[in-house]
Order: sequence, then C-alpha cells, then structure tokens
Amino acid sequence: MDLKKYIASIPGFPKEGIIFRDVTPILETPEAMHYVVDAFTEFAKQTGADLILGPEARGFLFGVPVALEANLPFAPVRKPGKLPRETVEETYELEYGTDKLCIHADVIKPGQKVVIIDDLLATGGTAEAIVRMVKKLGGEVVGLGFIIELDDLKGVDKFGGIPVCVLTHFEGE
Amino acid sequence: MDLKKYIASIPGFPKEGIIFRDVTPILETPEAMHYVVDAFTEFAKQTGADLILGPEARGFLFGVPVALEANLPFAPVRKPGKLPRETVEETYELEYGTDKLCIHADVIKPGQKVVIIDDLLATGGTAEAIVRMVKKLGGEVVGLGFIIELDDLKGVDKFGGIPVCVLTHFEGE
Repeated sequence: MDLKKYIASIPGFPKEGIIFRDVTPILETPEAMHYVVDAFTEFAKQTGADLILGPEARGFLFGVPVALEANLPFAPVRKPGKLPRETVEETYELEYGTDKLCIHADVIKPGQKVVIIDDLLATGGTAEAIVRMVKKLGGEVVGLGFIIELDDLKGVDKFGGIPVCVLTHFEGE
Repeated sequence: MDLKKYIASIPGFPKEGIIFRDVTPILETPEAMHYVVDAFTEFAKQTGADLILGPEARGFLFGVPVALEANLPFAPVRKPGKLPRETVEETYELEYGTDKLCIHADVIKPGQKVVIIDDLLATGGTAEAIVRMVKKLGGEVVGLGFIIELDDLKGVDKFGGIPVCVLTHFEGE
C-alpha cells in the first residue's frame, strides 16, 4: 500500500518553514488503518514485546489498536499532571527549552519488554526520553514503530541499535 | 465482566473534593479492553454509524479501536491549534470560563451518521459541543458511548434522546 496517499502535507503548520505531515487521513480510511496496525502488530510480535507504550496524543491513536491486536497491555505516556497514580518522569529537549513526559510507575515491571508506537520520528527526542524512563523502571525497549520517519533528521541514531519499524519516509523540513 | 475492577478511583485528583476515575487499568488488561471495544462496536453497528469521533485525549484511546473493529473511519476532536487542515470549532462551558474543540471540516459529509466515544460522561458539556459541531456540518450524532457515567450529574439530559451506551456507573463527586 502506498501510505503517502493517506498522509496530508500542510506547509506552514504549525509555523512557517515547517511542512506538517498529517496522519489523520489514515484514521479516516479503514484499509489504511488496518495496514498500519497489522504492520506494527507483526513487528511487536517479532520483538517479543509484552507491553505497548504510546505518547500523548497521536501515539494513542496507533498504539492502542496495535496492543489490542497483539493482545498486549497498553500504557499511555503523558504530559505532567494528566496521570493520576504515581508516575516516573523524564525531561527532554525541545528546539527552545525542555519539556517533560510521565508514565505510571507501576506499568513497567523489571525485565519487561516494551515497544513504543508513535506517528512520526523527527529528532527522536520524545522517544529517547521514553527509552530512558523504561530503563529507569527496570524494563527494556525492544522496538520502536513510527508511521513516518523524517530521514535527514537522523532520529534513529538516538536509539543505539534498538530495532525500528518505519512505514514511510520523508525528507525533514 | 465487572469493569469496576479495572477502574482506579483516586481521591483528590486533579484537585481536592474530586474522585478521579482512572480507566488506564482497562488499557493494561487486554480482556477488559476487548470487552469495552466489543460493547461499543456492537452499539455503533446498531446505530448505523458511518463515522466514529473521539475527543482528545482519552477519547482517542477507545474510539480508534472501535472504529477499526467496526471497519469505520475515525476522526479526532481536538483542542485549537492541533489539527492542521481547515477546522470547525465549538465553544463549551467549563466550571470557570469556556474552552474550544475543533474537528477537520472535511470529515463530516451531509447526512453522515456519527457515534461519539469517550471515557467518561460527567456534565456532558464536551459531548454536547461535539453534537453541535456535527450538526453544523450537516451530519447527525446517532449515538454516544461512555465507559463511565457519573449518574447524579445527569449529563444524558443534554443529548435530547440520542441513544447513549454506558458500560458502568458511579455517583459523581
């Protein structure tokens, strides 16, 4: 399937000089959605994952159906103040400044194998922060799945050889 | 299935006097997740829906797998500034002040039948705003599905007889 047909490219969003890659047409097209979910489910099974993590908010859109199809638990990765139970948090770099991500501390058991699913791999800062959080709790990230990679940003270099499943590629702008 | 076993109740979150009903244990338990998704899928089919909407961010967690299982398109309802294409927006009341929700204008076609899925029905303000947005675009909300209803807040009264599917009930605090 040519997934690019279901990715809208919006120049100047959210600001000038950026071409936003919009995955919502995938969600609007059941065949495209099944294709994405099947590909990530197969990947998650190959890695031996026993938990799927998805970061707020677009990671929820794809991580949850993969978990359901692979019959695995799913846990959300959220901004501070959203998860009500005890959390572990990790800071990551933005273009200007830093931000934080949290997960419920009790979702990762020591030795647990985790796959992270998100829509887009740019610089990889978000996913790298999640890899650190999982490690802090004694788990191990065994795979990362992204619908889109912005190739020239070289985000994969941040993951130290962890298997990465990418479904389509763009140049980063 | 006794869904309440998979809902954590956290007193004092996000502020004193509130008991937060946390659905993340459902996501962590594939059997519970299958139960929820199957129930909503059956409901969506009965209503004759041809589109599922889920509001940011917890509505994404349950709306997407229902759309996938029912083989229907899904569209996200988001806060302003998140959706890159042309949007329609609607204001709704909060305890203090107002907030806004948006959908991509091209996802609703005239006459389209829509089911809204979210985790929790409290006062119903968010869902009511989505019902208005769908109407504005010529569509019709034919059903609303919530995992939890806080019964004494009487949110269902806002929906003017549209069928509502609720999987478990709590008193609102």
